[in-house]
Amino acid sequence: MTGAGVLHGVGLGPGDPELITVKAARLVGSARFVAYFAKAGRNSHARTIARPYLRPDCQEIALAYPMTTERPFYSVDYVEALRRFYEESAERLANLLAQGRDVALLCEGDPMFYGSFMHIFVRLEQRFRIEICAGVSGMSGCFAAARAPMTWGDDTLTVVPATLDEAGLERRLAEADAAVVMKLGGNFAKLRRVLTRLGLVHRAIYVERGTMAGERIIPFCEKLDDTAPYFAMVLAPGKGRRP
Amino acid sequence: MTGAGVLHGVGLGPGDPELITVKAARLVGSARFVAYFAKAGRNSHARTIARPYLRPDCQEIALAYPMTTERPFYSVDYVEALRRFYEESAERLANLLAQGRDVALLCEGDPMFYGSFMHIFVRLEQRFRIEICAGVSGMSGCFAAARAPMTWGDDTLTVVPATLDEAGLERRLAEADAAVVMKLGGNFAKLRRVLTRLGLVHRAIYVERGTMAGERIIPFCEKLDDTAPYFAMVLAPGKGRRP
Repeated sequence: MTGAGVLHGVGLGPGDPELITVKAARLVGSARFVAYFAKAGRNSHARTIARPYLRPDCQEIALAYPMTTERPFYSVDYVEALRRFYEESAERLANLLAQGRDVALLCEGDPMFYGSFMHIFVRLEQRFRIEICAGVSGMSGCFAAARAPMTWGDDTLTVVPATLDEAGLERRLAEADAAVVMKLGGNFAKLRRVLTRLGLVHRAIYVERGTMAGERIIPFCEKLDDTAPYFAMVLAPGKGRRP
Repeated sequence: MTGAGVLHGVGLGPGDPELITVKAARLVGSARFVAYFAKAGRNSHARTIARPYLRPDCQEIALAYPMTTERPFYSVDYVEALRRFYEESAERLANLLAQGRDVALLCEGDPMFYGSFMHIFVRLEQRFRIEICAGVSGMSGCFAAARAPMTWGDDTLTVVPATLDEAGLERRLAEADAAVVMKLGGNFAKLRRVLTRLGLVHRAIYVERGTMAGERIIPFCEKLDDTAPYFAMVLAPGKGRRP
């Protein structure tokens, strides 16, 4: 669209504001319009990371997820509510872009890796110019925070959401040399059973809030309860060739 | 060791110097001693990324890989030469650290993800203080460069080195929702056969020198020859749930 603005999908890294890229700092620091996702009634985590770099006079567009905690995750209602939310969010940004405004859409971690940004990207990429700035993924942040060399030589790395069913989770992890398990909340007891059956418990590391305030990193076998917050993952480092 | 220096493993990101983190820029910009790996007789890629941030008066320690091109990759000689190289490199750095010098060891991409840094880390971590600064991985840089949303909803991501044997490569990729294939050089024809048998050819993207000068990104089926340089990978984006 002639005269339209540019949408920047800006990866902000794993949580520590110093782990955003020089490019992201430049893009955020020059943006007059800054958009971000947030859970309704909560602070946006992306905005918290970006705060030190924001222009004091920037205009903020908070895209608040609909309240969905009382609906089953895979229900038709939930998916439809999310779809509508992404449609409406994309249209809010499209209106600004059509007026010639550049917009920086803040993304936790790496925008193209399980990122909410992708749902906006696929809706607007045919209509507007979109630039993507890579970020340090949450898992890369956790590798460093846990001081865990992850992949050696010919190791494969498998990243699995713990939301998979138990058999699927076990099949994927059985094939993995190194593994990262994400989306733990509510799936921890299942994951513990799988890691125990595969003999991975003693190699696994539990990382909570990696690179952020309140960071907590312990061997998996010292994690005694089965609860985990949103910013938590389990790492199983590889054991490949090391000369 | 009392009075010893600190070794910083500094991730530099995928290649574009603006994709290093604010923290890495600070660490590199304040380092009096900067070490990096390089192939014998070639420029160090890590040094090229870091160059805009280096202090003019920093002392550089080039760790030059032994010439190994004429030996088979898995030969005892090759592994032994590499082992000796890592031992000697670790001792060079240990000497500086023991003298109370802080050293920044430059790492392409993410230091804990297939990084040469890890071979130094495991040799020195019991003797010296080592800090690790996460970086944007080469693959995250390629996701953004290729404008490829990689993982949706419950997608798994599998990262495989193309150095695996053909059956192993096929087994891993058959289970993957989203996949990244690294270490292509010399393994391209094998990878093409596997992707063709799995019906992945039409979804795959070939990325050469992602985020660097000379970047080249094409659909895999437009890649007609079977050669690939070191900085090349193949992406197969996931197709999971997208509301």
